[in-house]
Amino acid sequence: MAAGAAHVASPAKETLPEKPVRFDLRPAMPDVGLFPRKAWASAIRIALNALPASDLGYGDLRGSPILRSALADYLGRVRGLVADPTRIFITSGFAEGRALACVVLQAVGVRRVAVEDPGYSDWIAVDKAGLIRVPVPVDENGIDVDQLIATAAEGALITPSHQFPIGGVLSASRRQRLVKWLEEQDRYVLEDDYDAEFRYDQAAVGALQGLAADRVIYAGTASKTLAPALRLGWLVVPPPLVAPMDAELRRWKEGSPRIEQDALAHLMQTGAYDRHLRKMRRIYRDRRDLLLGFLKRELPELSIEGAAAGLHVTVRLPPHFTAANEAGVVAFLRDRGLATEGLGRYTENASGPRRLFIGYGRIADSAIGPSIRLLAAAVRSFALPLP
Amino acid sequence: MAAGAAHVASPAKETLPEKPVRFDLRPAMPDVGLFPRKAWASAIRIALNALPASDLGYGDLRGSPILRSALADYLGRVRGLVADPTRIFITSGFAEGRALACVVLQAVGVRRVAVEDPGYSDWIAVDKAGLIRVPVPVDENGIDVDQLIATAAEGALITPSHQFPIGGVLSASRRQRLVKWLEEQDRYVLEDDYDAEFRYDQAAVGALQGLAADRVIYAGTASKTLAPALRLGWLVVPPPLVAPMDAELRRWKEGSPRIEQDALAHLMQTGAYDRHLRKMRRIYRDRRDLLLGFLKRELPELSIEGAAAGLHVTVRLPPHFTAANEAGVVAFLRDRGLATEGLGRYTENASGPRRLFIGYGRIADSAIGPSIRLLAAAVRSFALPLP
Repeated sequence: MAAGAAHVASPAKETLPEKPVRFDLRPAMPDVGLFPRKAWASAIRIALNALPASDLGYGDLRGSPILRSALADYLGRVRGLVADPTRIFITSGFAEGRALACVVLQAVGVRRVAVEDPGYSDWIAVDKAGLIRVPVPVDENGIDVDQLIATAAEGALITPSHQFPIGGVLSASRRQRLVKWLEEQDRYVLEDDYDAEFRYDQAAVGALQGLAADRVIYAGTASKTLAPALRLGWLVVPPPLVAPMDAELRRWKEGSPRIEQDALAHLMQTGAYDRHLRKMRRIYRDRRDLLLGFLKRELPELSIEGAAAGLHVTVRLPPHFTAANEAGVVAFLRDRGLATEGLGRYTENASGPRRLFIGYGRIADSAIGPSIRLLAAAVRSFALPLP
Repeated sequence: MAAGAAHVASPAKETLPEKPVRFDLRPAMPDVGLFPRKAWASAIRIALNALPASDLGYGDLRGSPILRSALADYLGRVRGLVADPTRIFITSGFAEGRALACVVLQAVGVRRVAVEDPGYSDWIAVDKAGLIRVPVPVDENGIDVDQLIATAAEGALITPSHQFPIGGVLSASRRQRLVKWLEEQDRYVLEDDYDAEFRYDQAAVGALQGLAADRVIYAGTASKTLAPALRLGWLVVPPPLVAPMDAELRRWKEGSPRIEQDALAHLMQTGAYDRHLRKMRRIYRDRRDLLLGFLKRELPELSIEGAAAGLHVTVRLPPHFTAANEAGVVAFLRDRGLATEGLGRYTENASGPRRLFIGYGRIADSAIGPSIRLLAAAVRSFALPLP
């Protein structure tokens, strides 16, 4: 998912050398230490052996037919998508998928798009496509659909399954209103389903695309389920956007790397992908429970949001905290080797409660206690009444 | 190389089902049947084992530091490039490299670009970047540099090592004039070094970039040397264009697939890449000699161009052949299961001698004789005086 992605990759490039990170609690990074190296190497070997020489040439612009077919099955079964292979496009992760979707929306006449606030930290793909962003507030039930409709935007970019970064799930009633709007007004929405696979307490929520397959561009990725370094993602595109997507893609590429696509398809078709996800879900849930336990012990006065899914939780800071207090906590922690993020990274709106986002994708169990104690000390030091 | 790439991939999509291809003599496709599967699978395994978990996250936007370092060595040694890793960008094959280069040229103020005529068959990446093409003729010494300069274009896209599709090598005197112009006028040129590795009779010609590293965007690819399905290419960018390239890339991607990049680096660093190229060079040279032998026997009256390098030769049709005759020969052959291409695919200029491009990348030795006999019959049937 690009918000996390852009975030994770950028600090090293943007800033001067910082203190080394001892505790990395930034959101939206999976535990790449548990990447299934053996299964992947074996899947690569099997995919390469199975590939006829004729498929080592320039491939299908939309991606390997084998992976697109495996994804159609997987997304239909696990996420409730309407996804025949002809409307699936393989991308270089979510980043390329979002950039392409924005260009295609612009090509079919969209100018203003509603976006979540707080939402992504990086809007370059939206802005460079010539789209105008209209921020819409979110709460624990996802984006405010009434306000979205009131913007009269011609499209939207949303994270309905687990709003990034707050963590709400778009409620059933909002989904219904959104679908009605999409269909009555012939609008399009980009659904970023970035961590749908990691859901711990709730029943799984199906993708929005399953309710409005002709109005939703669905974006998924293997970055969270396997590893960002694979750079494998996918778009499922409404039929009227397939031809514009082909036209844009022809400018940029001659298909995607074939062997890795077929390796992923192999993992999906043999059940190894599901097994890996079940294993990771257990590990992340246990680690989240540990994190929640420490948060409850060290910071019982603060409420936690968005813990039912994903790879981070949201800590709501005390009511009197300002954006400056929040930034102060983040800087205080960073100075002590703990990397986390505040709401300020994801919004320009200074009103409302302040928040910290605590990722547990890549922190060792043993580091959670010391991290949360440090966090508590930081919050306390900024919570003191000003002299 | 995109000309061939675009060409090879598109016919199946653009046209209705055709007769099956028995003899595939289209240019610009390597012999993917000889892709080193074992070496590649082994390199993937070694690269994955060597990769620390921290490198399985979101990677460097410009590509793997390991591959960029291996390429700096390789390109310096084999192609005479000035190529430190900081100016190297890994791309999804030449297609993405060209598209990015065009956008970056536009971003630094270039509007009109000189292009080779005949040249690429697909200009979508140039046109969509907002660049205006100014066609400049080519001959057996490559693009006519005096005419290029006379266009007053602000940049150029050229194939100096082996002009595509005619096959000329940009002469030393033209290189000098071109470099002088680039430096005096602060112009940029995209050098597509698409099949520099396959050179049979001549001494290797160094890349133009080695003569003007601050004015040349160099583009290379593994599509011809290994297989198009890998989607691995690279750009070497003048220092003033590094930041604009970073800015554009941030819109599209979070780096490139890491494991495959390091696998290619492993092949380069261990000498396996050089060994594979030596082997392929022998095979292609022998196959070319066989092809030239049949052409001399069956069509002794026609002259052959561009045979000293690359994966195709150019057959110059008899002087009275028109564009319609040439298209007739191509259609006649295609109807009989032989796929080849005429000059008409690569130019809109109807004057001058007509040509056929005969690729030998993917034809079996045993099929060369029958193919050339069929070709000779086609040329003869169109060479008969009209009644």
